[in-house]
Amino acid sequence: MILKDIGEFGFIDRFKGNFTKNLPAGMQGIGDDCAVIPSESYDYVVTTDMLVEDVHFITKEIGGYQLGKKSLAVNLSDIAAEAGEPVGSFLSLAVPSTVSVEFLDEFMKGYAYFTEKYNCPLLGGDTTKSLGPLVINVTVIGRVPKGKFKTRSSAQKGDFICVTGPLGDSGAGLDFLLNPSLNRNDNALELIHRHHNPEPRIPEGMFFASRPEVHAMMDISDGIGSDMKHILDESKVSALIELERLPLSDVMQNEYGEQRSKMYKYAVTGGEDYELLLTVDSSMFGTLNFDYSNKFGKELFRIGKIIETSENCKLFLTENGWPVNSLGSGFDHFMA
Amino acid sequence: MILKDIGEFGFIDRFKGNFTKNLPAGMQGIGDDCAVIPSESYDYVVTTDMLVEDVHFITKEIGGYQLGKKSLAVNLSDIAAEAGEPVGSFLSLAVPSTVSVEFLDEFMKGYAYFTEKYNCPLLGGDTTKSLGPLVINVTVIGRVPKGKFKTRSSAQKGDFICVTGPLGDSGAGLDFLLNPSLNRNDNALELIHRHHNPEPRIPEGMFFASRPEVHAMMDISDGIGSDMKHILDESKVSALIELERLPLSDVMQNEYGEQRSKMYKYAVTGGEDYELLLTVDSSMFGTLNFDYSNKFGKELFRIGKIIETSENCKLFLTENGWPVNSLGSGFDHFMA
Repeated sequence: MILKDIGEFGFIDRFKGNFTKNLPAGMQGIGDDCAVIPSESYDYVVTTDMLVEDVHFITKEIGGYQLGKKSLAVNLSDIAAEAGEPVGSFLSLAVPSTVSVEFLDEFMKGYAYFTEKYNCPLLGGDTTKSLGPLVINVTVIGRVPKGKFKTRSSAQKGDFICVTGPLGDSGAGLDFLLNPSLNRNDNALELIHRHHNPEPRIPEGMFFASRPEVHAMMDISDGIGSDMKHILDESKVSALIELERLPLSDVMQNEYGEQRSKMYKYAVTGGEDYELLLTVDSSMFGTLNFDYSNKFGKELFRIGKIIETSENCKLFLTENGWPVNSLGSGFDHFMA
Repeated sequence: MILKDIGEFGFIDRFKGNFTKNLPAGMQGIGDDCAVIPSESYDYVVTTDMLVEDVHFITKEIGGYQLGKKSLAVNLSDIAAEAGEPVGSFLSLAVPSTVSVEFLDEFMKGYAYFTEKYNCPLLGGDTTKSLGPLVINVTVIGRVPKGKFKTRSSAQKGDFICVTGPLGDSGAGLDFLLNPSLNRNDNALELIHRHHNPEPRIPEGMFFASRPEVHAMMDISDGIGSDMKHILDESKVSALIELERLPLSDVMQNEYGEQRSKMYKYAVTGGEDYELLLTVDSSMFGTLNFDYSNKFGKELFRIGKIIETSENCKLFLTENGWPVNSLGSGFDHFMA
C-alpha cells in the first residue's frame, strides 16, 4: 500500500490518536490550522508547511523572489486563521546543485517581504543539499491574547458563513500554469500573478480575535468545498453555500464572462485562495461587517449558512435556491 | 555560482544581517542551536532540522523505525543544548510514491519513542508527495526557566571544556555505511547502531540550566573540531583540546585497538555524536561533576580548556602535551 491509496488525511488518521491523547491543559495538537501552546498572557499558535518543487510550484514559472515571498505567506495565512499575530519564522531548504546562489539571494529577498510587513523575523533554519527537487519547509510561530484563538470546531447552527475576499483566482491561474498551450492574455497573467502572490490576512485575523461573534475560522488553502468540510466535521454541523453569493474578481469575470459554472468550480475547488473562511453569529453580522468595513475599507462576503447540527456533516450547494450537484472535491495531494 | 562554492555557512552569512537586526528585547535569532522567544516565566527555545534521503540517511540501512526515532532525536539534541525542556514537535514529510504506508507506520512508531520518553507531543505537521527523495523536516519547541538558557557565546578564559559522553562512534558507524565493502563484524554493527540511534541529552541539559558555572553549551552534530569553532567564534576565545582526554567507547577501542590517530579523527571530525559540549568555570568543575555523577551515574569528561580571549578564535590540539596538526575540519554539507 502506498500513500496515494489512502491520501494525506488517511495517513494522518493512522497515527493521530496516538499523538492527541493526554495533552497538557489548553494545548491543541493535530487537526487545526495551527497547534496551540498555552502560556501566560498569550497562547502561542504554530504552523508548518512543506513546499516541493514540481508538486507545489514550478521554479521557472514562479521565480526566486515570488517563491520566497509565497513560502512565508502560506504559513502566515495559517497564523491569520487562528487570529494570531506573527512572532517569528523558521526556514529549511534542501537545495539541488543546479540552483544558483543568485536564485537563493532572490528567494531570501522575497522571504524578507512579509518578515518586514508583519514584523515576523526569520529566527532560524537549516540548509542542506538535495539530490532531487528543491524542498522548502517553513514553520511560523504566532501569538494570540489568552483564549482568543479561533478554531475549526466552533461553528454553530444559524451562523452565517463568510469569506474575506474573492475566490477562485488562484485556481484559475494554476490551470494556466499547468496547461502551457493556453493563451496567456492579460487576464491569464493576472490570475497567474495572484496564484504566485497570496496575501495572508493577518490584520483581518487579528481583528477577529477581539470579536466573540466570530465562531469558527480557518484559511482557504484547498478550496472552500474541501475546507468547509473540516469546519463541518470538527463542529458537527451541516452547511449550505449559495453559489451566486461567491465573490468573483473582475479579472475572473472578464476572462470567463458567462461561464458561471466554470467560475463556481474554481471558487469552490480551486484552492490556494488564502482568504479567511469564518462563521459568524447571524444576529451580529451587521455590526461586525460595519466595523470591519470601517477598518479595512472592504466588505465581508456572506456566502452561506450553517443549517443544522448533524453528525452527517454535509455541505449543500445551491444556485438561486436550486440544489447543485457537487462540483468535485478540493485538492488532496494524494487522492487528486 | 552554486551553493557548494560558498557552503552552508557562507550562504547564511549573505542574509543573516538582514534578519538579526531590530529583534525584540530578549529574542535570539539565527546563529545558535535554538532561537529564543522570550515569554513570561519561561523563554521558549525553537530548533528545526531537515533530513534528506541519500544525504543524511540511507533508507534501506536505517529502516523506518530508527529513521523516525532519529528524526526527532537530532532536534531534541538542540533543545538539550540550550538546557531546554521539550514542549512539542512538528513534522513535515515529502514522500516519494515508492515508500509504503507500512514503512511510514514504522516511521511514526519510531517518532513516538521520544515523544513519550520526554513528554514532547507531536502537535502538527504537513504531508506531501515528493517526485524525488524522502525529505523530513522536524521543528521542536522547548522551554527554559526565564534567562536560564545556554548559548555558544558565553565561554570564558580559563573554562574547562567538557563533553557528556564518548565521541566518534557515530562517525565510525557512518564510515561502515558509506563503504559497504568493509567487513561488518559485531563492532561495526554496534557502531552503525549508534549512528542510527542517537540519544538526546535532555535530562543532562535541563540539569545544566540550574548551574551558572556552566557557561557556553551546544550539542555535537558536526564533530567537536567544527562545533568548538562555533563556540570560539561566538565567544571570541581560543581553546586547546587534549586528544588523550577524548572519551572513546569500548567498542571503538575494540575495533581500532592501537590506531589512536584514527580514533582521534573520528572523535574530532566524525559528527553526529549528539553529546553535549560545554565550558565550565574551572573552579567549580569538581562540585559540578560531583553533583552530575550523583544524579546521572556517570562522569563529565574534561577534554580541554579555553586558553585565552582572542579575536583569532583558534582551536589547538595536543597529544600528551605535543602540538598536533589539524585532523581536518568537521562536516559541512556543501564544502565537504
